[in-house]
Amino acid sequence: MPPGTLVHIGERSDREIKISVIDYGPTSYEEKEIAALNECFYFMDATTSSWIDMAGLHEIELVRKLGDCQGIHPLVLEDILNTEQRPKAEDFGDYLFIVLKMLRLGENAEIATEQVSLILGKNFVISFREGLAADPFAPIRERLRDGKGRIRALGADYLVYSLIDAIVDNYFVVLETLGEQIDDLEAEVVANPGRGTQQQIHRLKRSMIFLRKAVWPLREVIGSLERHDSRLIRPATVVYFRDVYDHTVQVIDTIETFRDMLSGMLDVYLSSISNRTNEVMKVLTVIATIFMPLTFIAGLYGMNFKYMPELDWRWAYPAVLILMALISVGMLIYFKRKKWL
Amino acid sequence: MPPGTLVHIGERSDREIKISVIDYGPTSYEEKEIAALNECFYFMDATTSSWIDMAGLHEIELVRKLGDCQGIHPLVLEDILNTEQRPKAEDFGDYLFIVLKMLRLGENAEIATEQVSLILGKNFVISFREGLAADPFAPIRERLRDGKGRIRALGADYLVYSLIDAIVDNYFVVLETLGEQIDDLEAEVVANPGRGTQQQIHRLKRSMIFLRKAVWPLREVIGSLERHDSRLIRPATVVYFRDVYDHTVQVIDTIETFRDMLSGMLDVYLSSISNRTNEVMKVLTVIATIFMPLTFIAGLYGMNFKYMPELDWRWAYPAVLILMALISVGMLIYFKRKKWL
Amino acid sequence: MPPGTLVHIGERSDREIKISVIDYGPTSYEEKEIAALNECFYFMDATTSSWIDMAGLHEIELVRKLGDCQGIHPLVLEDILNTEQRPKAEDFGDYLFIVLKMLRLGENAEIATEQVSLILGKNFVISFREGLAADPFAPIRERLRDGKGRIRALGADYLVYSLIDAIVDNYFVVLETLGEQIDDLEAEVVANPGRGTQQQIHRLKRSMIFLRKAVWPLREVIGSLERHDSRLIRPATVVYFRDVYDHTVQVIDTIETFRDMLSGMLDVYLSSISNRTNEVMKVLTVIATIFMPLTFIAGLYGMNFKYMPELDWRWAYPAVLILMALISVGMLIYFKRKKWL
Amino acid sequence: MPPGTLVHIGERSDREIKISVIDYGPTSYEEKEIAALNECFYFMDATTSSWIDMAGLHEIELVRKLGDCQGIHPLVLEDILNTEQRPKAEDFGDYLFIVLKMLRLGENAEIATEQVSLILGKNFVISFREGLAADPFAPIRERLRDGKGRIRALGADYLVYSLIDAIVDNYFVVLETLGEQIDDLEAEVVANPGRGTQQQIHRLKRSMIFLRKAVWPLREVIGSLERHDSRLIRPATVVYFRDVYDHTVQVIDTIETFRDMLSGMLDVYLSSISNRTNEVMKVLTVIATIFMPLTFIAGLYGMNFKYMPELDWRWAYPAVLILMALISVGMLIYFKRKKWL
Amino acid sequence: MPPGTLVHIGERSDREIKISVIDYGPTSYEEKEIAALNECFYFMDATTSSWIDMAGLHEIELVRKLGDCQGIHPLVLEDILNTEQRPKAEDFGDYLFIVLKMLRLGENAEIATEQVSLILGKNFVISFREGLAADPFAPIRERLRDGKGRIRALGADYLVYSLIDAIVDNYFVVLETLGEQIDDLEAEVVANPGRGTQQQIHRLKRSMIFLRKAVWPLREVIGSLERHDSRLIRPATVVYFRDVYDHTVQVIDTIETFRDMLSGMLDVYLSSISNRTNEVMKVLTVIATIFMPLTFIAGLYGMNFKYMPELDWRWAYPAVLILMALISVGMLIYFKRKKWL
Repeated sequence: MPPGTLVHIGERSDREIKISVIDYGPTSYEEKEIAALNECFYFMDATTSSWIDMAGLHEIELVRKLGDCQGIHPLVLEDILNTEQRPKAEDFGDYLFIVLKMLRLGENAEIATEQVSLILGKNFVISFREGLAADPFAPIRERLRDGKGRIRALGADYLVYSLIDAIVDNYFVVLETLGEQIDDLEAEVVANPGRGTQQQIHRLKRSMIFLRKAVWPLREVIGSLERHDSRLIRPATVVYFRDVYDHTVQVIDTIETFRDMLSGMLDVYLSSISNRTNEVMKVLTVIATIFMPLTFIAGLYGMNFKYMPELDWRWAYPAVLILMALISVGMLIYFKRKKWL
Repeated sequence: MPPGTLVHIGERSDREIKISVIDYGPTSYEEKEIAALNECFYFMDATTSSWIDMAGLHEIELVRKLGDCQGIHPLVLEDILNTEQRPKAEDFGDYLFIVLKMLRLGENAEIATEQVSLILGKNFVISFREGLAADPFAPIRERLRDGKGRIRALGADYLVYSLIDAIVDNYFVVLETLGEQIDDLEAEVVANPGRGTQQQIHRLKRSMIFLRKAVWPLREVIGSLERHDSRLIRPATVVYFRDVYDHTVQVIDTIETFRDMLSGMLDVYLSSISNRTNEVMKVLTVIATIFMPLTFIAGLYGMNFKYMPELDWRWAYPAVLILMALISVGMLIYFKRKKWL
Repeated sequence: MPPGTLVHIGERSDREIKISVIDYGPTSYEEKEIAALNECFYFMDATTSSWIDMAGLHEIELVRKLGDCQGIHPLVLEDILNTEQRPKAEDFGDYLFIVLKMLRLGENAEIATEQVSLILGKNFVISFREGLAADPFAPIRERLRDGKGRIRALGADYLVYSLIDAIVDNYFVVLETLGEQIDDLEAEVVANPGRGTQQQIHRLKRSMIFLRKAVWPLREVIGSLERHDSRLIRPATVVYFRDVYDHTVQVIDTIETFRDMLSGMLDVYLSSISNRTNEVMKVLTVIATIFMPLTFIAGLYGMNFKYMPELDWRWAYPAVLILMALISVGMLIYFKRKKWL
Repeated sequence: MPPGTLVHIGERSDREIKISVIDYGPTSYEEKEIAALNECFYFMDATTSSWIDMAGLHEIELVRKLGDCQGIHPLVLEDILNTEQRPKAEDFGDYLFIVLKMLRLGENAEIATEQVSLILGKNFVISFREGLAADPFAPIRERLRDGKGRIRALGADYLVYSLIDAIVDNYFVVLETLGEQIDDLEAEVVANPGRGTQQQIHRLKRSMIFLRKAVWPLREVIGSLERHDSRLIRPATVVYFRDVYDHTVQVIDTIETFRDMLSGMLDVYLSSISNRTNEVMKVLTVIATIFMPLTFIAGLYGMNFKYMPELDWRWAYPAVLILMALISVGMLIYFKRKKWL
Repeated sequence: MPPGTLVHIGERSDREIKISVIDYGPTSYEEKEIAALNECFYFMDATTSSWIDMAGLHEIELVRKLGDCQGIHPLVLEDILNTEQRPKAEDFGDYLFIVLKMLRLGENAEIATEQVSLILGKNFVISFREGLAADPFAPIRERLRDGKGRIRALGADYLVYSLIDAIVDNYFVVLETLGEQIDDLEAEVVANPGRGTQQQIHRLKRSMIFLRKAVWPLREVIGSLERHDSRLIRPATVVYFRDVYDHTVQVIDTIETFRDMLSGMLDVYLSSISNRTNEVMKVLTVIATIFMPLTFIAGLYGMNFKYMPELDWRWAYPAVLILMALISVGMLIYFKRKKWL
């Protein structure tokens, strides 16, 4: 297919597509939910800021209409619909295009991602998300409605920061869950490692590989926004981007720490298997070393030779029993000394 | 041999060499297939764009002629014919020279590459390929013929982008196939690892080494095209190169993820061997620990001493049998507790 | 929560919050301890330097008041209260904001951190710390009081250097303790490795991961201060920051060396397990190889065949005993040669 | 010794020192071989280019004379004679000094190096080599003699390129030989790994370490020549240096690939040892598990109790034999199911 | 303690402190040894160069006096006395301060370091060393005395180069000793690896970690001197620093190579343990597999059943013996085929 062809790639949400449009300024606030796009929004020249949030990407026509109204490049629309993008930020002069990954913990503690695309224009923000997970932007909508804090006064670039911050904050939640699992596993690997332990370590390692892939490029993305000379991000907002950048670095730090810890656990697990093999061997060796000589002695006096003087000796049997006991005790002492028992 | 000597290095295609010449503009389209090069093509000053595609490199004379007509440097022609080049991009002022690797999955899921060399002039593109695999450019030819999309209007640099994009898109197909194999292997390594499993892991790891070698330099190549101030790539086209750059980074990401996953699998495989050795040891130890004492007792009463009072006792035999049963049961309980059974 | 919301994250100190205010100049020195903040400190225009040190962060109101008086950005206050920050330095024009981690060895040689935040203004320093550990700044307070050395004459930027230096010097103390533990462990791993040894190695490796996370960003932080063109750090003080930078690099060097040593120890430990398994195997093999043939021979002459001429031979029994002795001795010599004994 | 003292370090060639002097221009060609240096060559102002090639470095006086004539720095002469240099390129204004390593496969496929030093002046090249291996520059001499190709017309910088190219081309030959050995080893490690296999892997790994040490700096060297603004390398020649740079990168790529492959092989080898231990264990366990119960039963009826009713039963013996057969068959079926047989 | 406090940290030399003062010019040379510093040296304006060499750092007063005379910063004096510095170079405008590590092989081939600090002024050099090892600068003193070579004519910066060069040259001696040990170990690990082998590898690995820590920063230090625009190092001397820089890179290369080799050896050692375990297992399995069936058969005919027809058969005994021999021979052939013997 030629580049710029719009195809939706990824899981399809069952829910209906929801488009919410919020128009706000320091003193005004208006919110509506729409189902169809009959005409373009002309907020370019408005003194207020606008935020269009689209949850659900499976109706291509809607995305195209929204994009055409604002003059979005077809390649950008293609990237919005292809939910296997890497996080990235691109400056198109009139608008900034940002792709992020939202995390959600699926069943069995599997980590899944949902793609969120943001377009930051002069006084508007458009956010596209797959709509598979719960709305991550609910608290921001709440804050806008309340009009408390700086959010209403600070314009569209601050809104974009708030959206990114909401997503990055969510990472900490996921990491905390994983951290707890790792702590449990660590206790298990020391106390009672089994076959399942190793599969758990393996599973968590895969999650880490997955997480890294989602978060590493994010650092670069936010770093580029912070350093950026885009006129769409005002100097006053840069300090906020620096803050969310710090959070991202912290997320990456934590992931790397978890990876190191999981590698360490694998070492512990492997050496505990070796240890147990060693202990099984010791048991076998102790048993064999004690009973082999005894069995041999018993066999010796079970021979049917005619001329075996011991056989006729009165105290031979008790003497042999005592000899056997001495051998056993000697062996046990020897093994005790060698710390095999 | 002196540098610039033209020698064809690499597999020889059996098919005949095919040269297709396409001349196109926003409104015009002409296509012909030629077998011999009797005269040079003079499209330098034309208002249309031209694309010459040569499939099969084993007739050196044809390559030389084509090159000489357009004033291509002999070293470039040498690189085109030597199909063991690394991907690279070189700016010669009048034209850009780009070497890429196309992937194809051979039998037994072995990955093979085919070299594609592109020359981008002011209003022409020449593509050379080994012609071993199926034509990767068929869809582009189709799009040119149809005249749909932007492709006819956007000139030679956009065509080069399209060709590179077609090749990079093909990587995803190969990666998907490998991804499925890795998923299968992962299931196998957990459920039922055998000797073949490890050879599979090894084989896939080698494929990854091979892939990396082909794709890593590609990133650099496309990155340099994107950043490049070559006057042959117009600013309007740069955004497309940025897009294909993103794809390449995604390919590399996936390869690295696969490598990590394969390393993880090898760990699982190795620890599963250790685990099994451990289990075999346990069986042996259980058997030996139960039967050695019993055999010893049996041997004891098989001794031929004259004075063994037990032998004459009426209930000795059943008593010994009961003793043996007690020992066995005791052992089994002990092993049960130690979780060896 | 909206960004800039002040929430105290981290362990809560039991002690009361202590705010100490020191005002000093080359010739003057004044110190007081206050419990409440009723009015702002106006030291902006003073010719003396001031240092406010707050130990304990659990009364948010105090932090806010202090911050508002000096015009500190709300995000900075948020970072001060969130004690899970990464070390960092940020220049806000009017003041520098620095976050550091102080180390303390908890029980069981666990390493814990305490966050210290520093704000360097034109002629004032504010330091915030969690107040969990003992006061790390006591010696500096002492030096200020004494008025010896350069500290009183050199202004606020030198004071910040002194505070950072006190924290970094503390790292060396912690590292020394860890170094001794590693040396002990090294002796143990060579002489008498047990299950506990490996858990110790594992524990120390985790400590190293933890330490790295705290110290690596510190290097960057101090490096940025040293190179910084902030007008708050005068050229005369830069040489001191270079000195503390050297110390940080030394700390990192030592951590990396410890990590390498612990990895090496793990290798020694693992190969010592393998070695011991090997030795247990040898014991088992020697025992089995000696007694199996002897037991077989004894069994042979325990058979009840009617026609076994040896049984009736006079010297058969001693001959068999001698044969058995010869076999045993032969085996022992063989194993001696193979170095299994 | 003071710096600049001339001492020959390295293997001494047995052959006599050979100095060949070639003077060439687009139309002229003169070649002579000399044994002694009685006077300096004054080719500084000539319109032709000159190439002095010295094979064998053990006569220090010759090197000094040659160097003094052209005003070469004593440190350079010291480096020429010390054949343990790293590859490097240094610009001394009037001349460029380049040190390279030539590879040669010694006996037992050991890789040895020979140092080649090049001095590029305005219109002359001096090459020094140890003279241990065959003359690597013979084809270039041939090309100069023939006067074919560009070599005569393109001056001293092109000659230097040709010399470097000849050396780098030789690397591919060595790598091909190593590649074949690695392929053989790969087949062996999968089909029939023995103790020798591992020593082979080890040996090849050492060769790779050795190769890397020789080739990695080369990349830097040629890269610096390519980027260099030395007036001794004309823009027209830079494209050739770019070409040889590509070759070097390819050599490094291949070395890294070989290293990865050898690491992979070591993994396969180690897991194949584990696998075999596992199989040996299985055989032992099967044997012990079958015979221990049988031997116990036999021992049971070998006891000499007076009152053992079974002993007098007519069909006891065949019954016991059948019981034993059943036990054996049962065990075998069990092991078949467990896939141990 | 406040920064700039002078404390001697490190081993204390037993020898007396020796201060040698050398004053030299192209034609003059004066040398004296002094014990006390009663007045400052005023060589600032002299046309000759001066070199003060202090061996032994345990008299703090001497260092302070020397430093104060030349106006050395207290932090520099602190660094000179603290012998746990990292190698570094710092430019203080009027003088350059350089810290280096000298290596010496202690007993048991342990590597120890001695700190050497150099101060390069306009026409003077002051060198401080711990005085634990033999004087590394003796040959330089000799060369100055002789007046041969360039050393007297080239000034203080050349002298600093000579001192650094002497130290770096000493590294090669230490590396050579280590290289021989590694070669011996390599032979041992292949031919006859024992428990000591591994401890040797471990010990050498630690030495490498230690060496790396001392040498890596050195590269940076000398690199910065070479690139430096300090007016204290004249352009004519830079070429010499480039030379010693090359040597440092060579030292680092060698260390990395040794590290790689030691890692390779550890792999060989570990797999040789596995191999031997495997061989011990084979011996055990062979013994058990041969004797278990034989012992069983012997036990079978040792049973006391009344009705065992074979017992009465004349040729039963020899027949059983032949059967046993056949079983043994069969087993041996089987193991021969499986290459276990």
